[in-house]
Order: sequence, then structure tokens, then C-alpha cells
Amino acid sequence: MAAHSCQFRVYYEDTDAGGIVYHARYLGFAERARAEALRSLGLAVGEMAAQDDIGFVVRQLSIRYHSPLRLDELLEVQTHLVEAVGARLKLQQVIRNLSCEGRKSVTIDVELACLKLTDMVPLRVPGAYLEKLSGLEIIS
Amino acid sequence: MAAHSCQFRVYYEDTDAGGIVYHARYLGFAERARAEALRSLGLAVGEMAAQDDIGFVVRQLSIRYHSPLRLDELLEVQTHLVEAVGARLKLQQVIRNLSCEGRKSVTIDVELACLKLTDMVPLRVPGAYLEKLSGLEIIS
Amino acid sequence: MAAHSCQFRVYYEDTDAGGIVYHARYLGFAERARAEALRSLGLAVGEMAAQDDIGFVVRQLSIRYHSPLRLDELLEVQTHLVEAVGARLKLQQVIRNLSCEGRKSVTIDVELACLKLTDMVPLRVPGAYLEKLSGLEIIS
Amino acid sequence: MAAHSCQFRVYYEDTDAGGIVYHARYLGFAERARAEALRSLGLAVGEMAAQDDIGFVVRQLSIRYHSPLRLDELLEVQTHLVEAVGARLKLQQVIRNLSCEGRKSVTIDVELACLKLTDMVPLRVPGAYLEKLSGLEIIS
Repeated sequence: MAAHSCQFRVYYEDTDAGGIVYHARYLGFAERARAEALRSLGLAVGEMAAQDDIGFVVRQLSIRYHSPLRLDELLEVQTHLVEAVGARLKLQQVIRNLSCEGRKSVTIDVELACLKLTDMVPLRVPGAYLEKLSGLEIIS
Repeated sequence: MAAHSCQFRVYYEDTDAGGIVYHARYLGFAERARAEALRSLGLAVGEMAAQDDIGFVVRQLSIRYHSPLRLDELLEVQTHLVEAVGARLKLQQVIRNLSCEGRKSVTIDVELACLKLTDMVPLRVPGAYLEKLSGLEIIS
Repeated sequence: MAAHSCQFRVYYEDTDAGGIVYHARYLGFAERARAEALRSLGLAVGEMAAQDDIGFVVRQLSIRYHSPLRLDELLEVQTHLVEAVGARLKLQQVIRNLSCEGRKSVTIDVELACLKLTDMVPLRVPGAYLEKLSGLEIIS
Repeated sequence: MAAHSCQFRVYYEDTDAGGIVYHARYLGFAERARAEALRSLGLAVGEMAAQDDIGFVVRQLSIRYHSPLRLDELLEVQTHLVEAVGARLKLQQVIRNLSCEGRKSVTIDVELACLKLTDMVPLRVPGAYLEKLSGLEIIS
């Protein structure tokens, strides 16, 4: 099974006066990629919210910066499932620089909590969701 | 009567790879300044939303860029009332570079619409609000 | 000749607590679209900077908000050339909501200045650039 | 010795459609606070870059989300030094919600690398900098 992968371009809005991508922007790319990974499994964030009153929020996140991305470069985000237990989902995301031979740029480990949105209370990830999430490549 | 004025610092998050403040960030500084101007008049955006179900959204905006701001510089936003008619509020905001003798950086003309938030319908600016808004210096 | 068109998705990073896309984010979408329009003509922003020491900065911009975009919606930015004279380039960009029958969301009129990047001095748009820019649909 | 502390307000630009501060924005608040902490010690980021060709970049960062911040709330960032060894600086930053009895919102552990900016090569933190940095409260 392949990891979910999607690509984004670096624009001026992503860079800072150091001439490289601003460190917090990688979290934005990763969030876009999680949304696309979920959408590809039939779990679009807008529909989850509207139909099921369910959302995923970030509980914990760590990011290691290996090499910076620069203006105009093309990047790929690979999203892997690490585990799904109770109300928690752990993912690993790797961002690579496709304009530089796929060099690894950052590694992100993120733990999400499944929430009932109206009252922001943690919720066991529904079985139907788990089934769909099993479509993500699992690494450990 | 003095215009409402507040100050912000330029951080890396505000800059881009051109070494200057990213052009869309000035709209963020202006929004912060509008929130502070309203708060100083007793109209905090959070309270307006929670207590009165009222918010102001941007309908139209134009911005002229006179000279760029850079990392670490201190800026001042002056907010003036141009007019308040029906559901519309027109403001002019000038951003100056306090790290560079107060040189004018951008001029923003913005037209806001007053909305009932639950159904996003335009709403005549309430009289009690107009009275408070009269505390802003008027230019024309 | 068709206008240059490209599509982007709305993610959480683009929205605000009003439940809609934050008003300054439309300028980010428009900047991405200008970069893609230029790239499609052989004028990638990174190469222009590195090879020719040339960049385009925003001098003036006005934006009208017709209807808000929301989380997860797909948008299209159409970029038209209005005129290219001396060091100035005028573009009009229209953002439409493809998740809502192509409804017009915002209209942006933007004036760019061509600059020599090392000293930030205005520069007449080079003839080779003008030739490439003629590939953009012209409206007036 | 007291930790360095500074305060910021939450504006619309910081929030997302979930009604809370967007998860990556906390990194922006933390970066602002590091810049202010360094400035208070006589190490303004702009001057370090211009005079000493020195900058600090983020090598690694982890963030735990305890409770969300919302529109209009006032937050405090406390910045502590954990250790400074060779080219590395470790800081811990805690963000508290002053609009909610100082409730802890996030904890950030960040490792910075000192770089010579022209060639982006790691550089042992200069002795004069270490002396100034000793003005930050140390926790372990």
C-alpha cells in the first residue's frame, strides 16, 4: 500500500526574510496534506463537520527540520498512519523537496484527537472512520 | 480629537523572501488596529459577537504601498472614521514606520458592513454603536 | 485567447472564527495565481530573481468581496492582463467558487512594479518579458 | 530571576473556522516572544543579522496543546532557557490565557541553531551572546 502523497508549490506567502520557508508554514502544508489524505478516503473535513459533527484537532506535534525549502520549489507531503486508538490518531508526515532530488525537508509527528464539535468533547473514532482510515499506509 | 493609534513590531512571520513585509500582512496589521480602535470605544469584537450577534466584515478595500517595512521595525497604525451610513462604515488607516522617522508605509481605505452574525444579513449600525464610533476622529 | 486559470482548495489555515475565509487570504490566493500565470509564460519568480535580478512588487491593490468562501471549497483564480506600460503591470484577478456553481467571490485589481532586486529600483519591463506577457488574455 | 514574559492579543487573523486559534499560529506567538526576549537582552534579530551576520533558526520543535485560545483573548508567553551548548540553544515557552485565569494553553520546546547567515553554516554561539543569554531564567 502506498502512503498518501500530495504536492504543493512554495510561494512568497510561505517564505520569510531569511530567504527560506517560515518554520511555522510547514505545519500549514502538513494540515493541507492531512485534509487531502482524509478526503481521498471519503472523509472530507467539511462533510465530517456538517454531517457528523466530528472534527480532528491537534493535541501534540513535533517537527524536525532537516533542510530548508525555498521560493518556487515544489514539495511533496507523504502522510502515514502510525496508530488509531480510542479518540487518538497518530500520523507521521514527511515533506520532501521535489526541486532538489526529493531531499527530506521536515519530519512531523502529530497526534490528533477526534472531537464532537458542538461541545468539543473527545469522541472515540467511529468504526466507519477507522475502516476508511485503514486505507492509509501504516508505519510504526 | 486624535485618531486612534496603535503600534506593532515586524517579526519574521510578517516578512517574505524579498526581505520586506509580505504585501498581504499589512491587512493583518490593519485588522488588529481596527479591533483595538473598536475595543478602545467599548466595542470589543468578541463581545459584539457574543452579546449582540453583530460583526463587521470587509466589503471593499484598497491599499497603496508607499515604502516597505522590514524585519524588526516598529510600525504605527492610525485609524480614522470616514463615514458611517446605514450598514456601512468607511475607515481610512495609515501605517507609518516609526523606525524610519514615521515615514508613510501604506494607506488603506476600507469599507465594512455591519452584519447579524447568525444569518450573515446586513444590519443598520445600531445607534448605540454609532455613538461610540463618534469617538473616532473623522476625516473626509 | 483564454485567461490564465488555476485552482486552489480552502483549508483551515485560510479560514477565521467567522467561519469564512479570512479577508486577507484572498490576496495570498491571488499571489499564488500570479506566480502560476507567470510560470506558465516562462517567467518563474525564482528564476527571474536569480537570473535577471528582477521581481514584481505590489504598488496598489483593490479588492471587492462579493460572496465568502468557506472551508473545503474549491476556488478558481482567473488572471487577466489590463496593461503593461513602462515599469507598471496592471492585472485583474477574479476568484470564483467552484463548489458553488462558479459564483464570483472577489475581484482584485492589482498594479505591480517591475524592480531591479539588488537596489529595489523601478525598471522598465524588459521587451522579452512583454513578449511573454502578451500570452495573457487582455481585458480593459 | 524572572522568566521573560510578553503579551499578545488574539485577532481574527489568528483564528480558524473551528472558532479557536489555528494550531500553527502558536508558533508565530512563540517566535514573536523569542524576538522580544532576545531584544530585551540586547540581541535584536535585525541587528544580529546586519552587524554580526548571525541568526538563529529552528532545528526542532515540539508543542503540546492543553486548552485552546479564542478570539479577543489576551495571552502571555513565558520564555525560559533550558541550555546553550555549542551552536545549540534550547528554550521552553509556555503560553497562558490571561483572559481565563492564566490557564496553560500550550507548551513549546524548541531547539535553535546559531548560523552564520551568509553561508547558513552552524556557528558556536559567541561568548558575548552567551553572557547576554544568561539573563534568561534557566529551567531544566
